[in-house]
Amino acid sequence: MIELNVGFIGLGKMGQGMVNNLLKAGFYTSVYDIRKEPLGKMKTLGANVSGSSKEVALNSDVVISMVRDNAQTEQVLFGDKGVLEGMKKGCIIIMSTISPDFSKKHAPKLEKEAGVHLLDAPVSGGPMAADAGALSIMVGGEEGVFKQYLPIFKAMGKNIFYCGASGAGLVAKLTNNLIYAATMAGLSEAVALGLKEGIDLSVLLGIYKVSSAGCWAAEHYWDYVTPQRKDTGPDSNMEVLYKDLRLALEFAKEKGVSMPITRFCSQLDLYDRVKS
Amino acid sequence: MIELNVGFIGLGKMGQGMVNNLLKAGFYTSVYDIRKEPLGKMKTLGANVSGSSKEVALNSDVVISMVRDNAQTEQVLFGDKGVLEGMKKGCIIIMSTISPDFSKKHAPKLEKEAGVHLLDAPVSGGPMAADAGALSIMVGGEEGVFKQYLPIFKAMGKNIFYCGASGAGLVAKLTNNLIYAATMAGLSEAVALGLKEGIDLSVLLGIYKVSSAGCWAAEHYWDYVTPQRKDTGPDSNMEVLYKDLRLALEFAKEKGVSMPITRFCSQLDLYDRVKS
Repeated sequence: MIELNVGFIGLGKMGQGMVNNLLKAGFYTSVYDIRKEPLGKMKTLGANVSGSSKEVALNSDVVISMVRDNAQTEQVLFGDKGVLEGMKKGCIIIMSTISPDFSKKHAPKLEKEAGVHLLDAPVSGGPMAADAGALSIMVGGEEGVFKQYLPIFKAMGKNIFYCGASGAGLVAKLTNNLIYAATMAGLSEAVALGLKEGIDLSVLLGIYKVSSAGCWAAEHYWDYVTPQRKDTGPDSNMEVLYKDLRLALEFAKEKGVSMPITRFCSQLDLYDRVKS
Repeated sequence: MIELNVGFIGLGKMGQGMVNNLLKAGFYTSVYDIRKEPLGKMKTLGANVSGSSKEVALNSDVVISMVRDNAQTEQVLFGDKGVLEGMKKGCIIIMSTISPDFSKKHAPKLEKEAGVHLLDAPVSGGPMAADAGALSIMVGGEEGVFKQYLPIFKAMGKNIFYCGASGAGLVAKLTNNLIYAATMAGLSEAVALGLKEGIDLSVLLGIYKVSSAGCWAAEHYWDYVTPQRKDTGPDSNMEVLYKDLRLALEFAKEKGVSMPITRFCSQLDLYDRVKS
C-alpha cells in the first residue's frame, strides 16, 4: 500500500467512527472540527489534531470533508484557512451528501487551477456502520483517481461502488435516500393500519421481512424510534433525510426528470405516526 | 397428522403450484375451476377433478378458495352449486386477497348457521413461491381453528403468520402490499434519475441492495419486466396490486386511518418508467 497521509474534517457521529477506522488501518490521520470536544476524543485515539482546515491540508495527501451541507463544505474548502489555502496537489474527497452540482462544478476547476483531484463519495449506513467500518460508499469522479485511493475507502466501508463521473456518487446516494423515504412513508401508514386492526407490531414486521414489503426500513426503522437509540433519534435523521429529498428534487428538475413520489414524501411527516 | 381431504377452487398460476404442493404432502385433493385446461393438468398430477364447487365441498373437510376477487369468492361460496350447498361442517380457507370485511361479515354467520369455520389466509410471494411451497401466509380467524389446519398451510408455505381475528390476515396482506407499492414508486423514479445521470442499472441496484434503499422490489422488480418473465409480466401484477391498494384505502377509510401515500401510489403508473 502506498503510504498516504489522510486529513479528515468534520467529526460528527459519522466522522468519529470513520477516523477511528482510518487510524486502525494504519493511516497517519490529521483531523479538524470547529468544536473542541471531538478533537480531544480523536487525539486519544491517535489522530493528529490540527488548528484549521488549511493545516489539515498542509499535513495531508488526501483530505476528506464530512460536514453537514453545501454551505459548510464551501466554507471548509474555500473559506478562510480552508483546505485550498494549504493544498497544492493530491485529492479532496467529499463524503457528505451535498448537491451533485457542487462536485460537477468544482472538480474540473480544482483539477485545472490547483492540480487537486476531487471525488464525491457519500456514504450510507449511519453511525453504526461508520463505527464498524461497514459503510456503503458511492464514488463519482475520475476512475483512475478512485482506484488510486481505494485503500482509504476500504478502511471505512464494506461496499464501495464506482458510479461514474463527478457528481455520480452523489446522484446515486440521493436516489438511494428517496427510495428509503418512500419505503418509510409506506411502512408508517401500513403499521398504523395494522395496529388499528389489533395486529401485533412484531407480527407485522415479521411478515414484511419475508414478503414483498421487505425493506431495510422495516428491519431498522424501529431502532431509530425506541428510547434506547435516542442518541441517533428520529429528529436528526429526519432533518438529514428531508435535506436529501430537496437535493434530489432540485437536481431532478434540472435534468427534466419528474419525481412525483419524492415530492410527495418531502411534504409528509414520515416519522409522525410511529413517534405517536 | 390427522387425515384431511382438501378441496381447492381456483387453479390460476398461484393455485396450480399450491395444489401440486398439497398433493406432494399427501393430501387427497379435489379441485375445481371454471376453465377446463388447468383441470386436466391437475388430474395428471393426481388431483380428483370435481364438476362444481359444491362437489368439491362434498368431498372435502377443508375447502380452499383461491379466485380473483370479492365477486368471484362470493360466487364460489354462495352461488349456484357453490361450496355452501355441499359443506355442512369443516373449514373454508379464503386465500385470495379480498376485502377484510368479507371475512369479518361471513365468519360469524357461517359458524352459526352452517357450523363451518372460516379463515382468511392471503399469501405473498407470487407464482415462483407458490411452485416452491415457499409462500408467506397471513391468517385471520379463530386461533384454535388455525392450529387445527396448520399442516395444510405448512404444505404450501414457508412462513405462516397468525395475525388475529377474522379479517386480520387480509389486513396484514393489504398493509404488506401498500409498502410494496410505495417501494416500487420510489424505486422506479430513483432508477429513472440514476440512468439519466449515466449510472449503470447494475450499479444502482447493487447499491440499493446493501443500503437503506434495500427492498424486495429492488431485488425482484426486474424479474417482472424482462422479456424472459413475460408470463408473469407487469400487466397482470399491476392490476392485482392496484386492486389491493383500493381494498386498503376502502378499509382504512372505514377505520378512520389516513393513507396519503397509498392513495398517491394508487394514482401513479408504478411500472411506467421501467417499461419504457
